Amino acid sequence: MWRLIPREVRFFDQFEQQSANIKKAARLLHELIHDFADARAKAYAITTVEHDGDQITHNIVKQLNTTFITPLDREDIYALATRLDDVLDYIEASAERLVVYRVKAPTSACRAMADVIIRITDVTDSAIKCLRTLDPGYHVHIMEVNRLENEADALLRDSLVALFEEQADPIEVIKWKEIYETLEVVTDRCEDVANVIEGIILKMA
Amino acid sequence: MWRLIPREVRFFDQFEQQSANIKKAARLLHELIHDFADARAKAYAITTVEHDGDQITHNIVKQLNTTFITPLDREDIYALATRLDDVLDYIEASAERLVVYRVKAPTSACRAMADVIIRITDVTDSAIKCLRTLDPGYHVHIMEVNRLENEADALLRDSLVALFEEQADPIEVIKWKEIYETLEVVTDRCEDVANVIEGIILKMA
Amino acid sequence: MWRLIPREVRFFDQFEQQSANIKKAARLLHELIHDFADARAKAYAITTVEHDGDQITHNIVKQLNTTFITPLDREDIYALATRLDDVLDYIEASAERLVVYRVKAPTSACRAMADVIIRITDVTDSAIKCLRTLDPGYHVHIMEVNRLENEADALLRDSLVALFEEQADPIEVIKWKEIYETLEVVTDRCEDVANVIEGIILKMA
Repeated sequence: MWRLIPREVRFFDQFEQQSANIKKAARLLHELIHDFADARAKAYAITTVEHDGDQITHNIVKQLNTTFITPLDREDIYALATRLDDVLDYIEASAERLVVYRVKAPTSACRAMADVIIRITDVTDSAIKCLRTLDPGYHVHIMEVNRLENEADALLRDSLVALFEEQADPIEVIKWKEIYETLEVVTDRCEDVANVIEGIILKMA
Repeated sequence: MWRLIPREVRFFDQFEQQSANIKKAARLLHELIHDFADARAKAYAITTVEHDGDQITHNIVKQLNTTFITPLDREDIYALATRLDDVLDYIEASAERLVVYRVKAPTSACRAMADVIIRITDVTDSAIKCLRTLDPGYHVHIMEVNRLENEADALLRDSLVALFEEQADPIEVIKWKEIYETLEVVTDRCEDVANVIEGIILKMA
Repeated sequence: MWRLIPREVRFFDQFEQQSANIKKAARLLHELIHDFADARAKAYAITTVEHDGDQITHNIVKQLNTTFITPLDREDIYALATRLDDVLDYIEASAERLVVYRVKAPTSACRAMADVIIRITDVTDSAIKCLRTLDPGYHVHIMEVNRLENEADALLRDSLVALFEEQADPIEVIKWKEIYETLEVVTDRCEDVANVIEGIILKMA
């Protein structure tokens, strides 16, 4: 028993650590988008955070391999680890698109989206912290994640309307359409994390 | 026992109710595509149906939360609820794209796709109605869903060939390519629903 | 018992058969991309392999239906069968895009991607062969699948940078962007297969 308890607790530690990593990447993305000087270096900093995240994901999977009793179903630990990894991947992909497509500067629509990403990753973090104690307060956070995902959806729609109205250069349309869509996917993946958390708490409660 | 039985039955009621909702949205999309007058109002009607659907999804998840004995595995109820939600989301997204991209009128390729969507949502509905009794007749419906998804796939391919051959304006190519692809995804999501149904019946039989 | 053992073994046979099918399709795609003469006929050969694969997937699902004792969890057999199917679908989709978009000839970026696809489908095959005996050697193969998926990711990024720098015709940008992305998705789907295999072995070990 003595050995099992600390091991069990470690899964929650690592989910919270990964979530802190996501919050960090979201802040770096926000900074990159609000000040595009040294874009390449700032995007590289996000890639570094994403690599740290990969390491956490691998540690979680390795622990799954060597822990006999887990505090959650193995499948749920696996699902949550991979979904959190996806959030980080799309934050990095958003930064990468901005750099790879050599845009001059992020638009105001990007800035609005980066603001939503800060908020949704913060609320997702609050939901993750409910897992350890199956805190029924999780439900408020899940609802807020859903609300913010809808907000990002509406932002994407408005950005595309404006893009097609104002941008005559099709190459620019292709680039910005994909940048906006990738930013929006970050919020979709946060909603996926929220759904896994809800599923776990429904099952355990 | 008295309280549990009606609760159990309610899940099937709600899946069938959601499926009826999907059929309704498919018909509204068909109408929008075949007669584009008042497009914005017609798209808004679809959004309303989609919001009703969100409510049903939330009710199902809430019931999962408060029902001790469920007629199906909790995970399967959750999966089916979210997959049905996806079908509705993409029907709405298709309508939205037509309006947001300010197209003059849907093409004949859109009309052909809307016809397939009516048929595939009808057959998906027949498959859902098999769940309650684990009716082995489900298999014919699943096969038909797969066939219709292949038909939509072929339609998409032909539409893209024609689009790239006939449309010289790249902005128009971007818009129509995405409209056709979004319509096709509706049939992919119906196939996902069919796969969940098949999985459930395989497990229960 | 006598009847059950051969039935159990058959699942592994069929996964390995499907994987051999994927290797075959990957080689046909490689050939198509390295020599684009008779492109339509070569793409058609891939479609034939894909249809054979659909048949294997259906056989696996049908066997699930009629086998009482399975060597793996039903859900895992289902997941692995559908994920393998996805790999084949994207190999076919890649070939189809090249033909449907009437490109003059695949680029060097396509050739590099086809090389990675040969290697990643070979390594995925090695991982699948570990399932039967739960061979711990699976882990090396999974790591290599992940490495090759990262390689494909970097290739995609470099291809897009070059495409946007060198190609002035937006219609061509649309076509090639999608071709490169579809080729890259083949490697994403191999990674999904690897993840299912890892999940199964973690659970069984």
